[in-house]
Order: sequence, then structure tokens, then C-alpha cells
Amino acid sequence: MKEFNIAFLGFGNVGSGAYKIINENGNKIFKREGISIKVKKILVRDVTKKRSIDIDASLLTNNIKDILDDPEISLIAEFIGGENPAKEYILSALKNKKTIVTANKEVMARHWEELEKTARQNEVGLYYEASVAGGIPIIKVVRESLQGNNINEIMGIINGTTNYILTKMSEEGRSFESVLLEAQKLGYAEPDPTSDIEGYDAMFKLSILSTLAFHTRVRVNNIYREGITNITTEDITFGKELGFSIRLLAIAKKLGNKIEVRVHPTFIPTDHPLASVRNAYNAVFIKGDAVGNLMLYGRGAGDLPTGSAIVSDIVNACSNQSKHIYSTLYNGDWKPDEILFNDNWETEYFIRMTVKDQPGVLAKIAGIFGKFGVSIASVIQKGRNGNSTPLIFVTHKARELSIANAINEIKKEDVVIRVENVIRVEQ
Amino acid sequence: MKEFNIAFLGFGNVGSGAYKIINENGNKIFKREGISIKVKKILVRDVTKKRSIDIDASLLTNNIKDILDDPEISLIAEFIGGENPAKEYILSALKNKKTIVTANKEVMARHWEELEKTARQNEVGLYYEASVAGGIPIIKVVRESLQGNNINEIMGIINGTTNYILTKMSEEGRSFESVLLEAQKLGYAEPDPTSDIEGYDAMFKLSILSTLAFHTRVRVNNIYREGITNITTEDITFGKELGFSIRLLAIAKKLGNKIEVRVHPTFIPTDHPLASVRNAYNAVFIKGDAVGNLMLYGRGAGDLPTGSAIVSDIVNACSNQSKHIYSTLYNGDWKPDEILFNDNWETEYFIRMTVKDQPGVLAKIAGIFGKFGVSIASVIQKGRNGNSTPLIFVTHKARELSIANAINEIKKEDVVIRVENVIRVEQ
Repeated sequence: MKEFNIAFLGFGNVGSGAYKIINENGNKIFKREGISIKVKKILVRDVTKKRSIDIDASLLTNNIKDILDDPEISLIAEFIGGENPAKEYILSALKNKKTIVTANKEVMARHWEELEKTARQNEVGLYYEASVAGGIPIIKVVRESLQGNNINEIMGIINGTTNYILTKMSEEGRSFESVLLEAQKLGYAEPDPTSDIEGYDAMFKLSILSTLAFHTRVRVNNIYREGITNITTEDITFGKELGFSIRLLAIAKKLGNKIEVRVHPTFIPTDHPLASVRNAYNAVFIKGDAVGNLMLYGRGAGDLPTGSAIVSDIVNACSNQSKHIYSTLYNGDWKPDEILFNDNWETEYFIRMTVKDQPGVLAKIAGIFGKFGVSIASVIQKGRNGNSTPLIFVTHKARELSIANAINEIKKEDVVIRVENVIRVEQ
Repeated sequence: MKEFNIAFLGFGNVGSGAYKIINENGNKIFKREGISIKVKKILVRDVTKKRSIDIDASLLTNNIKDILDDPEISLIAEFIGGENPAKEYILSALKNKKTIVTANKEVMARHWEELEKTARQNEVGLYYEASVAGGIPIIKVVRESLQGNNINEIMGIINGTTNYILTKMSEEGRSFESVLLEAQKLGYAEPDPTSDIEGYDAMFKLSILSTLAFHTRVRVNNIYREGITNITTEDITFGKELGFSIRLLAIAKKLGNKIEVRVHPTFIPTDHPLASVRNAYNAVFIKGDAVGNLMLYGRGAGDLPTGSAIVSDIVNACSNQSKHIYSTLYNGDWKPDEILFNDNWETEYFIRMTVKDQPGVLAKIAGIFGKFGVSIASVIQKGRNGNSTPLIFVTHKARELSIANAINEIKKEDVVIRVENVIRVEQ
């Protein structure tokens, strides 16, 4: 039985989840795998702080050097989160020939090349299953189960906080602000919720997923990002009437050498598999040329689900020691200059406006859409609110730029009081 | 770049799917993985038969010895299907130190111990991703992503034919016979559909899945099996009214050292993730103590989806050559005599009967349920068909045996014309 000493960086939610799993299920796991794993050191900010789980004080240190310089430690699992100092710690660990298991989406998304290169040079592993979609093993599935496929499309619900908020808004008819406040009280949303509700968290994860799936580097700044703060109950109500559910989707599509990558609120048909993903659940929907449609669904956050991914990486890293498996970035299909990132993508659009309640308005606005080559699939115009009335269009497939130009011209019309929202639709 | 010569046994649907993928995407895959794979020989019954895909005639042989005795061939992928002669070929191949990739659920379900033992003794690999749920990488996920979990429950839609039939019956109000006939014409059901509609196919797959998930040997004869031939449109209609969708589920549950494994038609709530699985799609829903609920959804059959699983196994087998990963059967958690297979399980039941339309019937039947400790959750009694009327009960959780005993006594009552169906309900 091979023995491995490992260290944790950080001991918050995810770290203590992984520790619990190793404590409770470790003996069985290790027996099956023929290995033995011992957590030898844990880096924490405050070694005297009272912990929610019982832990031998001698394991704790606040000095990273105790870990980096310990030749017995062959693997480090990082759960500090955020870019700094996590990136420096990871890089130093790789240089000291220690395999890395990380849950850090931001560091992976921003510094993939440098980390992978350093790992290869030092012949150690770099594992990051927990960085995307918590307990859902999407990284391993893309890397080691879909090798035979050209993956052409990914649509993911990869941020649980926003999915929780949108589910509550949809099912209980409540406002964004009210649900956010509740989510913060329940601990589902951070005191500063920006990273979730503005789509940064999903953007980091999409960068990792699409880089892996398309075998080429998709950087954070290649991704269009729009959060959910402008979604109202009116949008949701009219969307339902049209057969749509709202989700914050992370979308990556490849067509020839063109890639589009975007995170934004999206209407999907209510019978789409992703529409059944409620509350804080995550799901990733993939289209491959061989496998067809594939979806993985599960818990995208939480101590034990994310801990499950961490422990899986640790066990695989120790078992694979003789042959670490890397992402395929450095022997990818394309050279960077062969790729075109396309932000004038083609999709369908839900456009909600408030117009004056007078004859000829519909014809005038439809005329402007027509002028920009935007064809209309359905319209809702009803109710009389006195002087104004809501008017909703759903378009056939149109270009992002055509829609933007049409909206600009529509806004100039006297009969148009406000263009309330534009929400993309994916079928 | 390491070079591998491989052989195929069989060249039907799955074999030609795998061949197509290797032909079309092989160069990219192999470049990324740093390996080179060549199909050197293909065993077919008739070497002169016209094939749907273009293939060099010199690759074809009808003599298994040309493959087993070729020292250059290090891996054999088997798609013959059925127990014999596939099992003998696989065993001989392993003894000749050739790694096996198989799609053969029956051989794995029936002969796992012998195959795994022979593979270990000969230090070659045994891969069987394609044996369960086609393109869905459920074997690898259970084996290499959920190691940290005690898996306590699996519920799977793992037979596409029956799911197609039940979907059509539910959505179009058509009879089992009519939809089966259509499915046979479309090639979704075999000319002899027994293996699918009577649940044998799902039973083999459940044996593999539960053996793997519970780290103990679950044999075919441990599994309760019931097909879908008795499901009627009446069952489906009343089920809908109660908020249920019907599926043929493969269920495995572990409680302490008790295991229950069963394949039968099942009502599930319409908002259960498995209820969104329509037509020929498959899905596997797993509960782990760390990961929580996890579901994988995709195509469970077809040349390219199953080919995707085959190619993934081939690539992994060649890449892992230095360290093959086996199932954990031989270092499992339990000794066989520590396990109790429980067939007196506890679940909820939908019971549909036709009774005489006269006062006191409901009280009488409810009384019998009460006598056997079966508590009723809901009842539907309505319509007057002259002398007879349908009467439907849904029970709270009850034991299989209590239900059987209650039904036996109910059948003896004069007021009961027929007990039409008993369908288990899972929440």
C-alpha cells in the first residue's frame, strides 16, 4: 500500500467538507484503491480559531513554508479561493514538485497556461474538478469520457445562487431584491453578491469548461457577461406565457473556427432538460458529434458535494502518480491565431417594451425590425393601462448587432415609452 | 508516440459507430493523447457481406484465431453481444494478455468475477463503459468520480425502447401494442422485443451498476424484474391525475447491509428530474452521502453514442496501459455473507381496481388495507359505468408483502370485479 502525505490550503467550507469525507469514508476508499492518504498539514489564517469540526491542533499552521518546504508532502489541495495569494502558493507548490488539487476557478481561468506548463515541467499533476459545478464531475467527463467527440455546444447552469434567485422569482412571483435579501439571510448568497449576480463566477467556470471542451484557450476577456439584476417579474410572467423559463446560462458554441462564449439571462423552452433544474442545483448540457446530447445535473456547491470532487481528484492524483493526465491545452487542435471569437452571434430574442396605447404602434415597430432584417416569431399586446401598454416581441434567429441597431431606432420613436428588457432565447 | 494495434469482434451497429469515430476524429484524439491506434483486424461472420461503411477487405476475418494469436494486437473491443460465444472470446483474449473493451452487458452481469480475475492475473485491462446506458459515462463516473461517496441509491432509466414506448403511450394516449408495433417498424424495438419490454436488458445493466456502486456482487438472480406489458392507458391517465409519470425504473437501494434491487414500471412525481427524460433517452439518478443527488442524462443507444463510450474506453485503456483501473469487486467493502438481499421492500403503491358501483365498497376495501397495516394516501373514485366503477388507491409507504396479502384478500370480496394493476411509486 502506497502512502501519501497531503496538505490543505484553507479550511473553510470546502476544505472541511473534504476533511470530513476523508475522515468518515477514507478507510474504505483507500482500501479499495490500495493507497493510504494522510492529511499532514493545514494552512489557516488563525491557528487558534475555534473550528466547527474536531481537528488536531498540531495539523494547523499559518506559515505556507511549513507546507511548501516539507519534502514528505507530495500533494496540496487548495481551497483559499480568489486570485491572490492562491496563485503564488499553487505556483510555488508545483515548482516544489507537489501535485495540485484545486477548487479555484479564478486562478485556473486566468492563469491556466502558466500553471499547466509549470506542472508539466515538474512532472506533477494539476487537478481542478472542484473548480466547476461542485459535485458534478464535468471536468473528468469532458476530459476522459468525451475524447472521441467534437464538442460543439455547452449550455450550463453553473451558478447556484442565481438559479436559486431566478427559481424563487419564477415560482413565487417575487422581486429580485426581495429574493436576494432572503438568499443572503439563508447563506445562499454572499454579503457582497456581485460575483454571483453579475455573472463573474459563471464566467470563470465557462472559461475553464470551454477551454477544455474546444481544446483551445478561451480567456475571461473573450466572454460576454451580463448578470441577472435587470430581470423583473414582468419579464418572467410574459416569458411563461410564451412557454419559456428563465435561467442564467453559460453558453459556448463552436462553428468551424468561430467560437461564441457568453453568460447572460436566457429564456429556454419549459420542456428543455435545463428548465427542470431548480433552486441551487447546477447542470451542464453538452452536444458532441458522437455522443449527441448529454446532461449532468447535481449540486454545484456546498461542503460535501464540492468535497466529493476534491477527494475524487486527490484519490485519482495519488493513483495516477505514474502518469498524470493533463488538460489538452498544449496539444490542442488549433493555434490561437486560427480562432475567431464571434460576438455578433445569432440567436432568438425576447424584447419587452412599454408603448403608447394608440393605433399603428405595432405596425411602426414591426416595420423597424423588418428594416434591420429581424423577423418576428410572436407578439403579445394586451391590457390597457390607460395611456400605455406592454408590447412583447419574440424574434426568429437574428444577429446580436441587428437587434442592437433595431432597438436603438425603436427607442427614438415617440410612441415608444421605454424598451424594458432584451432577453436572449435559446431553443 | 506509442502505437497500438487493436481488433474489433463484431461490426454491427456499435462496431461501425466506433470505427466511424476513429476514422473521423482519430487523428485529433491521438495527437492530444500522444498515442496512435490502428484497427488491425475485425471479426465478422461473413467477410464477403456488403458493408454500409467503406472498409478495407483485408481487415476482415471470420477466424477468431487470426486475432487471438496475433501478438501485435494488444486490445480487443467486443460488440458481438449475447452470452456465447462472446464470453469465451473475451476470456481467451484476456488469457492471451489482450486488454478487453466490451459493450456486453450480459457477459459482464453474469461472469464478472471470472473476467475480472482473469484480467488481473494477466495484468491487462477490462473496460465496459458501453455496457450500461450507451453514451452516458456512468461507469467511469461511479468508478473514478464518486470514490469518496457511500452510494445509497440508484434510480435509472436504462432501457431506451421501453422509455420510448411509455412516452408515446403517455403523450399520445395510445395502447402498448400499437406503440410497440410502431417502434418495431422504426427499428427502436427488436423483432423479438422480449429482452427490452420484459426488463431483462435493464436487469443486466442494473446488476453491473449496483455491483459497482455498492462494492459488492449483485447478481442477476438477486434482482426482481417486471416488464411493461401490463401497463394500460387507464393506469397512465389515473397516474397523471395524481401527479405521476410512468417509467420503467431500475432501482438499487442500500440500507445498512440490506440491498434491494428491482426493475419494474414505476410512477414518479412529474417534477422529478427523471420525469423529464422522454423518448429513447436514458438517465441515471444517484444519491451519494457526500455528493447528494446527481443525474446523468443522454443517449442510451445508437451507433455513435455507444461508439463514443467505446472509443473513450479504448483511448483510456491505451493511455492507462501502465496501470489499469479495475472495478473494486475484489477489494470490496463486504464479504458476500454479510449482505442481505431484501425483497420485502418498502415503497408506495398505486392500486387500480374495478369494483361494483354500490354503497359501502370503499369502506370495505379500505378496511382490508387497514387490517394489513397499509395506510392510504389518496383515493380516486368517480364516474358511473353502470354496474362497475374504477377505484384507485395510492398508499403511504408499505411493505411489498403487506400489499400482496391485502390484494389477495381484496380479490376475494364480492364487490371487487378485478384488481387491474399494482404499480409501485417512488418519490
